[in-house]
Amino acid sequence: MGGDNAPSVVLEGVAAALEADPALKIVLCGPDEVVTPFAANHERCEAHVTTQVIDMGEHPARAVRQKKDSSIVVGCRLVKEGQAAGFFSAGSTGACLAAATLVVGRVKGVQRPALAMPLPAPSHPLLLCDVGANADCKPAYLVQFARMAGIYAERILGIPNPRIGLLNIGEEEEKGNDLAIKTHALMAKQVPGFAGNAEGRDILTGDFDVVVCDGFTGNVTLKTIEGTSKVLFKMVKEAMMSSAKAKIGALALKSELYELKDRMSADTYGGAPLLGCKGAVVVGHGSSNAKAVKNGILVTARAARENVSEIIAQTLAGSDASNSEQVE
Amino acid sequence: MGGDNAPSVVLEGVAAALEADPALKIVLCGPDEVVTPFAANHERCEAHVTTQVIDMGEHPARAVRQKKDSSIVVGCRLVKEGQAAGFFSAGSTGACLAAATLVVGRVKGVQRPALAMPLPAPSHPLLLCDVGANADCKPAYLVQFARMAGIYAERILGIPNPRIGLLNIGEEEEKGNDLAIKTHALMAKQVPGFAGNAEGRDILTGDFDVVVCDGFTGNVTLKTIEGTSKVLFKMVKEAMMSSAKAKIGALALKSELYELKDRMSADTYGGAPLLGCKGAVVVGHGSSNAKAVKNGILVTARAARENVSEIIAQTLAGSDASNSEQVE
Repeated sequence: MGGDNAPSVVLEGVAAALEADPALKIVLCGPDEVVTPFAANHERCEAHVTTQVIDMGEHPARAVRQKKDSSIVVGCRLVKEGQAAGFFSAGSTGACLAAATLVVGRVKGVQRPALAMPLPAPSHPLLLCDVGANADCKPAYLVQFARMAGIYAERILGIPNPRIGLLNIGEEEEKGNDLAIKTHALMAKQVPGFAGNAEGRDILTGDFDVVVCDGFTGNVTLKTIEGTSKVLFKMVKEAMMSSAKAKIGALALKSELYELKDRMSADTYGGAPLLGCKGAVVVGHGSSNAKAVKNGILVTARAARENVSEIIAQTLAGSDASNSEQVE
Repeated sequence: MGGDNAPSVVLEGVAAALEADPALKIVLCGPDEVVTPFAANHERCEAHVTTQVIDMGEHPARAVRQKKDSSIVVGCRLVKEGQAAGFFSAGSTGACLAAATLVVGRVKGVQRPALAMPLPAPSHPLLLCDVGANADCKPAYLVQFARMAGIYAERILGIPNPRIGLLNIGEEEEKGNDLAIKTHALMAKQVPGFAGNAEGRDILTGDFDVVVCDGFTGNVTLKTIEGTSKVLFKMVKEAMMSSAKAKIGALALKSELYELKDRMSADTYGGAPLLGCKGAVVVGHGSSNAKAVKNGILVTARAARENVSEIIAQTLAGSDASNSEQVE
């Protein structure tokens, strides 16, 4: 039931994911009349009837506690119980985060799970982390975000030896707010692949593969990129409709610009993984279309198969000694 | 000597500003060989020879203390001594902030001066404040930023009753990090025109006239907007060059797209005012062209004539009673 266009777009995405990945099995959680007929018509899809729905506007943690038979809570419980290897939803991000944390649980050693968003950049995706799971952070959290996001970038986005940046307001190590300055010092010691401070203007240029920040700054940054792109594309479109001559020019450019818009669309990556959570949990955009749902499911499957959570657990356990000296 | 293309671009901008504003007088600070011949050839321009230059890479506060005969420090001293009503520079932002704070000084009652940046949005400019003067903030600072930026938006940008937003990660008042939640509660009581939380995606849409945040988040946001615009314009350009047909289309659209790029350029507003500083202090972009320098000087003159500092002083003094209950 997740997303603005559920359930039709979700079902379309599920069907496309099943077709694209012949080894994939999906447990579809939702109302009887939605999931049962769909599962009957699709191989490798099992219906799991749920009776409650968490709406976008509800208080996440409260909703998760009260609506135990919602598709989000049930989906997460299946992961917890080992009946599913991963969970994908395009529903309320807050509720997904709450359910993943409360129901699925954290990987041992992880202080705070973090939401990572692969951003479409011209050359290759950029993983921004955290984009909203943790509004207030300590330096040690950001160090873990960097390590977890580095693993995800390498294993799932296919970027060998990712260059990891700390989102900051200058290139020099002494620049930044209190959190950034302390984090820089820790990251320099504890994060392999740390490549220094990344500024807002460096995010989409390809100079970094992973950019780490607190969830407040990350969420503002993510929405600023989305908002700026939307406004600019709208203005380009208006410019193209502003005169007869411009319209003719626009017609000649149509396919190129659609291709560009498609390439810069978040749908390609399907969703944001919640790193540091047991199992593979991926949260889709509320406005996900069928393509985004399909890609979100496929990336969840890949994260489950690659055992990203387990690698995170082992990596963090291996560095426990060096992490014992933590800055609060 | 400020900016990447000094002194030629600065001199061009000064000449254009003198021409545009017949009541304007400019004291031009810089090396003898630059300022003396220029002043000799231009009415209403007085040369003030300085012997030192603060480079972009220097530590701002240290440079300001050591290079007392740099154009930035001397210009600020002229304001302090009442020999100039305002100061504009396209030099090191950090050095300008340091000189303005250390030499010119704060308006009485202002806890922290803040750098405000007018952003080109489709319908009318949006004033983002703080964009980097204060990396770590307390709620009471942000309340003052909101009031000061509101005055500037009304008096200088010509926006009556500006709608003031708090940059945050959700619309609801309980959303945000600790700073944002506490600031929201204070702003609701103390800021006329407070219109609630603004998200990253709301910045350029025109729903708000002023958006307030700490200087860390503001600087990241500003550079993210710049970076995203740059990447997208570059990609549109590449799409237009990708085939013969596309090139023909691009040719037909050329004037419309140049007009759009021009409209979305920061040069229109010329610079960022440092609010809460005595006199009128405006900092230009390091990559300012002549148009940006001209507009930066004109806006400095307008801020001086409108007596923005004095209005800020009176407004903050008038609300001392309500501000006495401050959240730290």
